[in-house]
Amino acid sequence: MDIGRVVGSIWATKKDDNMNGQKLLVLKMLLERGKEKPELVVAADIIGAGVGDLVLVVRGGAARYAVHNPNCPIDAAIVGIVDSIEVEDND
Amino acid sequence: MDIGRVVGSIWATKKDDNMNGQKLLVLKMLLERGKEKPELVVAADIIGAGVGDLVLVVRGGAARYAVHNPNCPIDAAIVGIVDSIEVEDND
Amino acid sequence: MDIGRVVGSIWATKKDDNMNGQKLLVLKMLLERGKEKPELVVAADIIGAGVGDLVLVVRGGAARYAVHNPNCPIDAAIVGIVDSIEVEDND
Amino acid sequence: MDIGRVVGSIWATKKDDNMNGQKLLVLKMLLERGKEKPELVVAADIIGAGVGDLVLVVRGGAARYAVHNPNCPIDAAIVGIVDSIEVEDND
Amino acid sequence: MDIGRVVGSIWATKKDDNMNGQKLLVLKMLLERGKEKPELVVAADIIGAGVGDLVLVVRGGAARYAVHNPNCPIDAAIVGIVDSIEVEDND
Repeated sequence: MDIGRVVGSIWATKKDDNMNGQKLLVLKMLLERGKEKPELVVAADIIGAGVGDLVLVVRGGAARYAVHNPNCPIDAAIVGIVDSIEVEDND
Repeated sequence: MDIGRVVGSIWATKKDDNMNGQKLLVLKMLLERGKEKPELVVAADIIGAGVGDLVLVVRGGAARYAVHNPNCPIDAAIVGIVDSIEVEDND
Repeated sequence: MDIGRVVGSIWATKKDDNMNGQKLLVLKMLLERGKEKPELVVAADIIGAGVGDLVLVVRGGAARYAVHNPNCPIDAAIVGIVDSIEVEDND
Repeated sequence: MDIGRVVGSIWATKKDDNMNGQKLLVLKMLLERGKEKPELVVAADIIGAGVGDLVLVVRGGAARYAVHNPNCPIDAAIVGIVDSIEVEDND
Repeated sequence: MDIGRVVGSIWATKKDDNMNGQKLLVLKMLLERGKEKPELVVAADIIGAGVGDLVLVVRGGAARYAVHNPNCPIDAAIVGIVDSIEVEDND
């Protein structure tokens, strides 16, 4: 899984029927501690994350299991809200 | 999911039978707000997107669910037309 | 899907039994119009592409559907020969 | 598979029910011998790895097989603790 | 598929039960002709490749089909030993 930060929301009225009711959040993924990649990633959320939260993001086929709907055409989902990260890094 | 912009169309007469009737659009993916990656990505579309639209793009196995044909050999599909993106970004 | 150009062929006598009879072509993927990535990609082809052709390439699990053999251990396949690309690009 | 080094742990109280009980470790992936990529990757572990261990990491759908729970929404798992690597490299 | 060169072996005593008996080789992937990416990739091999061999590598879900064990938690496998590559490249 990757670590991202919720930075906003996205709206799409015309969309796949299986995506109706899906809450979609806009994320920036962590590049390293204190830095983020510039790309905006859109992930489905059923955990209840909000703007500013640090979140665990799953990509690929596993995202469909995260929303408990194997027919939902998504490839990224939030699977946890990060409470804390403890990294022992001595480089 | 990633965010892309529809920039054109592509035609392929000789193709896999399962792709017949699939509308294929050419996209550029957003690198960050106001910038796009140079690569051209081809995605299937059953939502009705057109040139200039900002779209939500799903990659990998989920794309087959987006066209409701699990045998269709595609790895990218448009799953929504973006109405608006709201990003709270204070870096 | 991505767009590539067929640049050659590859031979492998010792290979997985499920790959016997598979025609394998060597591709370079388009970086942007007029530029190609340096990496050589190997894709299965049942469409009938040849050296010089611009082709639509599918990656990942969908490639197995492209060769109509879900047990074939491939992750890239040619699904169409590109006739034309029309890109409206005003940057 | 890729080779990573365990650098820490991560806690997420609010998470997908299928992730309850999963031990999650934070990794840095090897770029080349003696160098690591800056990104932090989060992987599930049922092997018993600890901080400092060099580990084999599997990505994508295979990660769900590594935790023996095909419904677990994860995309990275530790599948082995590396004892030794022997590389004959003469460039 | 990608093209790699076998550069060594890796040992992991503590590992997933489904990986017992799997021969694991360490590869460097070709960046372009004559150049290799620095990353070490670990792939399962049932073809019989050895150090120095140029090999065809499959990534993702297809790797499990290459070892004929759909429960094996691997994401890279050698599916062929390359005899020759013929590239017509006139840039």
